[in-house]
Amino acid sequence: MQINVCIFGVSGYTGAQLIQFLAKHKFVNITGIFGYETIGQKIRNLFPSITNLPDLTISNYSDFNFDNVDLIFSCLPHGKFQSSIINNIKGNNSIIDLSGDFRLDDLSLYEEFYGIKHESKDKKGKFVYGLSEVYKKEIKKAKFIANPGCYPTSILLPLIPLLKKNIITNQHIIIDSKSGVSGAGKKLEIKNLFSEINENFYSYGLKKHKHFIEIDQEISKLGKNTFTFIPSLVPVTRGLQSTIYIEKNESVMFYKNAIKDFYKNEPFIQILDKKCPSFSDVKYTNNLLLNIFEDYQKKKIIIISCIDNLVKGAAGQAIQNMNLMYDFDEKESLI
Amino acid sequence: MQINVCIFGVSGYTGAQLIQFLAKHKFVNITGIFGYETIGQKIRNLFPSITNLPDLTISNYSDFNFDNVDLIFSCLPHGKFQSSIINNIKGNNSIIDLSGDFRLDDLSLYEEFYGIKHESKDKKGKFVYGLSEVYKKEIKKAKFIANPGCYPTSILLPLIPLLKKNIITNQHIIIDSKSGVSGAGKKLEIKNLFSEINENFYSYGLKKHKHFIEIDQEISKLGKNTFTFIPSLVPVTRGLQSTIYIEKNESVMFYKNAIKDFYKNEPFIQILDKKCPSFSDVKYTNNLLLNIFEDYQKKKIIIISCIDNLVKGAAGQAIQNMNLMYDFDEKESLI
Amino acid sequence: MQINVCIFGVSGYTGAQLIQFLAKHKFVNITGIFGYETIGQKIRNLFPSITNLPDLTISNYSDFNFDNVDLIFSCLPHGKFQSSIINNIKGNNSIIDLSGDFRLDDLSLYEEFYGIKHESKDKKGKFVYGLSEVYKKEIKKAKFIANPGCYPTSILLPLIPLLKKNIITNQHIIIDSKSGVSGAGKKLEIKNLFSEINENFYSYGLKKHKHFIEIDQEISKLGKNTFTFIPSLVPVTRGLQSTIYIEKNESVMFYKNAIKDFYKNEPFIQILDKKCPSFSDVKYTNNLLLNIFEDYQKKKIIIISCIDNLVKGAAGQAIQNMNLMYDFDEKESLI
Amino acid sequence: MQINVCIFGVSGYTGAQLIQFLAKHKFVNITGIFGYETIGQKIRNLFPSITNLPDLTISNYSDFNFDNVDLIFSCLPHGKFQSSIINNIKGNNSIIDLSGDFRLDDLSLYEEFYGIKHESKDKKGKFVYGLSEVYKKEIKKAKFIANPGCYPTSILLPLIPLLKKNIITNQHIIIDSKSGVSGAGKKLEIKNLFSEINENFYSYGLKKHKHFIEIDQEISKLGKNTFTFIPSLVPVTRGLQSTIYIEKNESVMFYKNAIKDFYKNEPFIQILDKKCPSFSDVKYTNNLLLNIFEDYQKKKIIIISCIDNLVKGAAGQAIQNMNLMYDFDEKESLI
Repeated sequence: MQINVCIFGVSGYTGAQLIQFLAKHKFVNITGIFGYETIGQKIRNLFPSITNLPDLTISNYSDFNFDNVDLIFSCLPHGKFQSSIINNIKGNNSIIDLSGDFRLDDLSLYEEFYGIKHESKDKKGKFVYGLSEVYKKEIKKAKFIANPGCYPTSILLPLIPLLKKNIITNQHIIIDSKSGVSGAGKKLEIKNLFSEINENFYSYGLKKHKHFIEIDQEISKLGKNTFTFIPSLVPVTRGLQSTIYIEKNESVMFYKNAIKDFYKNEPFIQILDKKCPSFSDVKYTNNLLLNIFEDYQKKKIIIISCIDNLVKGAAGQAIQNMNLMYDFDEKESLI
Repeated sequence: MQINVCIFGVSGYTGAQLIQFLAKHKFVNITGIFGYETIGQKIRNLFPSITNLPDLTISNYSDFNFDNVDLIFSCLPHGKFQSSIINNIKGNNSIIDLSGDFRLDDLSLYEEFYGIKHESKDKKGKFVYGLSEVYKKEIKKAKFIANPGCYPTSILLPLIPLLKKNIITNQHIIIDSKSGVSGAGKKLEIKNLFSEINENFYSYGLKKHKHFIEIDQEISKLGKNTFTFIPSLVPVTRGLQSTIYIEKNESVMFYKNAIKDFYKNEPFIQILDKKCPSFSDVKYTNNLLLNIFEDYQKKKIIIISCIDNLVKGAAGQAIQNMNLMYDFDEKESLI
Repeated sequence: MQINVCIFGVSGYTGAQLIQFLAKHKFVNITGIFGYETIGQKIRNLFPSITNLPDLTISNYSDFNFDNVDLIFSCLPHGKFQSSIINNIKGNNSIIDLSGDFRLDDLSLYEEFYGIKHESKDKKGKFVYGLSEVYKKEIKKAKFIANPGCYPTSILLPLIPLLKKNIITNQHIIIDSKSGVSGAGKKLEIKNLFSEINENFYSYGLKKHKHFIEIDQEISKLGKNTFTFIPSLVPVTRGLQSTIYIEKNESVMFYKNAIKDFYKNEPFIQILDKKCPSFSDVKYTNNLLLNIFEDYQKKKIIIISCIDNLVKGAAGQAIQNMNLMYDFDEKESLI
Repeated sequence: MQINVCIFGVSGYTGAQLIQFLAKHKFVNITGIFGYETIGQKIRNLFPSITNLPDLTISNYSDFNFDNVDLIFSCLPHGKFQSSIINNIKGNNSIIDLSGDFRLDDLSLYEEFYGIKHESKDKKGKFVYGLSEVYKKEIKKAKFIANPGCYPTSILLPLIPLLKKNIITNQHIIIDSKSGVSGAGKKLEIKNLFSEINENFYSYGLKKHKHFIEIDQEISKLGKNTFTFIPSLVPVTRGLQSTIYIEKNESVMFYKNAIKDFYKNEPFIQILDKKCPSFSDVKYTNNLLLNIFEDYQKKKIIIISCIDNLVKGAAGQAIQNMNLMYDFDEKESLI
């Protein structure tokens, strides 16, 4: 079985990563790539380092016939896809949206945290939150997927087994996350210039981060816990670590086993024996690596989880979700 | 007034930073520089980028006459100075030791955490812990200074005012620190190679970090609190941030004012109004910049403190301590 | 058809890259991996980021039965393979050696430039110099391959078409090359530490570089030209650019067409239209990208060629050579 | 003697470096700082890492009284100062302009290479080209200084002694330069984003670089030579190396002695004995370090010259020029 896919937003970092996976996917034909300023350019010229690309030209989606398209990926910035495009496409296509547009159940929170009016509220209900390992059953039957954010992926995958098993209850969780720079996208702002970020490190989004509310939505579904989320920027292109501090009520091994057991058949989740996971261990992979420690005074359990923000935190998880939706091998094109 | 100083250990990063400050210090003559493999080399050749260096040659300290030396700096790795050198120098010289050898009051903890036998236990009592702003009175009268570690400096300076004023009591404090690579020194280990660290990020020392016990010593003096300390390595040369999570019992401004008031006459401690401090704000300076925030759910107070690990976290604080000891302008050569 | 391969030297950067390609190669079984300090360790633990690895343990080659081995890869440092190992393996195996041990026809030059005595002189004659696109015919029939160096690959591939067609004759060629750091391997030397290389840039090997004599061997075969070769170190992990200055006797297009024509059926060599190639365009690929320019005064032709030093400059070209030797698709596992 | 200085353009990297030098200069009072979007902000807030700043607020130059101003520095982008500001300031002030606006004698070449119309052609004649060591006599008497570009500084300082002594005549010189990123300024372009530059390296400006024509102007004054100039971008913040290839007609020592002799009293120019200069050797200094080599085949002389592009290549040389103009110690505030 082959499917035809189209992509919005290939000029960003997530889009570039997505097209690289799609180009080598055995069961995918890329049949349309849409843009604005790049309309008319050959994608082979735009991506000289990706081999196996079809001989396609960037086009305007409004001139495109979506009849034979099975699946649409959108890697557009938040707000672009929901505000008009989704309403202009009349086909019966499936959708995987990598933005935050359809992740939040409460759209008033979307409008508060993203500062963008939501123009497709009627469509929200059809979207499944695509945290692959947790919502696998729902994803397999879904037509529309809201692909999760990078921080939430790194945080929810380790926490959800503990929350579901009531191992974490009525606690305050502290989450100190560190992300590479590509997560911020290709925005033209002074703070994103090389000389501003190189040899620098700082925390940001302390008061109100878009991903806070996404994490909150999923944690709240599973009990009464509160949490603090502080992200920081690491001057590297790829990689993301979340350090999660919870109360120590059991042995380290108890927590490890609870998570190991929950993910025992999952190919992309690895619980390490001794090593502390690092960006190097996950870069360019769809893996989440984690390990669990206690502190010297044995007061806290520390979960350390690492992903590649552009892969498991974005494009890779989107491919994994596509593989689940179409019953392809879950690992196809991802290893 | 001019003083004569000698330096051990200039081949490391801290030593190089120290000699740069000393070379431009108005009241200092560098009269001796000691080494091993580098004996006989001109220091001007070793440090082509430092101007104003005297025309000195690296020598063997055992051939050196310490009679006219006022002050000895040691930037040697932990264990080297206490194990033999200090006992071989018979002069009446003052000492600022930048290693961990004389920081811990309980030398059995030194031996446990450093894995090194202490050979100068009798001398320990004469050393003052050189956290400049906190022990200023003692430093001014001291002959021997144990210069603090970089992580402890970034953590204790913000916490001590709150501990002294009983604003933090019976709490568990979480400290998530991030350091540039020069803090690790010039050790020849695979993990310190460029291709291992570049584009990487990871946590380390989770079970037992030398600085944990140094922080513990000072925190324990001021009440009954426990803490978790997790350091990580940022792939930059200089900079260090500590993110400190405490309970929120008062407004953010209450905490800021308590710290501001404590350090109101201190030239090197700046409490920022709005900006979150970054490595860029402190690199190559002796400043500690900090700011205080609350999280979105208003459950925790987050103190973020930044220093340059080689300056305020090592050589700069050593110079500041020398300035205090000899009643020089505290800022001399540091701005 | 499946072949069984063994690998020496997986603990280095080239070895890690090679094993990654081999793990996803359709027609390869990895049956042995040899080491020293790592003997007994599972390769899956050593390489947590490589999926599809067989469940193998690092072993000692002298305990290994090579009877069923088709092909041996050696990624050992220069001198290790030729000095003893190759003479101890008694099987009838094919070999691809990624070191410089068998690249030079004149072994006295090997001994001069590498400073190592050659202990397998009798075997040298059986090795083909594995510059894939140039010696394709010979490689297809070869049993032993000396895989080229990274600088020579980036320099010879653009120059050889011009030399063969007598477009460059009796000239002095200037070659200014810039390489990422992984090319230097995992050597424990102060100059390879992160804090030494980060934010730094310098030229090295000015008097006598191992790759000079390798380039010279191939250029000398094709006419009477002289050349200057100056390599520099760029503080990145991967990437290599050679900037080659030749006399301008024809239009830019004449030179481009000569090279294009020579490589017209080669999948890994791309001559760009307008863009100047960059490290980003080639990283993690087996491609060589090049473009040709003239200077403002139209006195010189400037050829700019980029590769990933660990892929086309090492492990990727080794895989390409294996694919040629065994008549696999030349691109298998490389895209 | 104290002078009053004003600065245009402190929001860029050169401006920030300049203000840092001025803040610690013994004989300078900063009395005005001009901006656009930043008007009304305290400079102490804008530069938290610079100590000793006066308590000044960014103002609009058109509201400012220039009567007591001795010297105006402009760090504005090319074209801004000449197009209007210089004509609006009616005082009798001296000027050091760090842009390219007044460097070229032939203003039609300015308009061609910069793509900007020149609106102050009458003023051009009053400007001295501020290559400190070469035009020292003229600078001491000058009222207006056109501060040189970073590439030209690194190239002309080594070449001019050889050109003046007729050691290089009727040759074609090849110049392969490599610069850190801060030289490009704070321009909001995709190519300047962290994720575009990090781990990347490429050549640019091959056809027509603004600095080509500046180099050409000075080389042409001293004889009949042609040259090729190819600059590349190194992914670091600071540092610049020029590798200059000339014909070998004499021994290496002959060339070194010619340059050494020319600069024998210059504090900022160092000719190294053996070491190849590196970015690390010059970062944050006003020094130019150089060394000279011959290639293996002894066909070419290779001059390698390194500076910090923001210091000797911009703000540092501007301070040096000010020190010369006002007869201050040439090194004041620069060491």
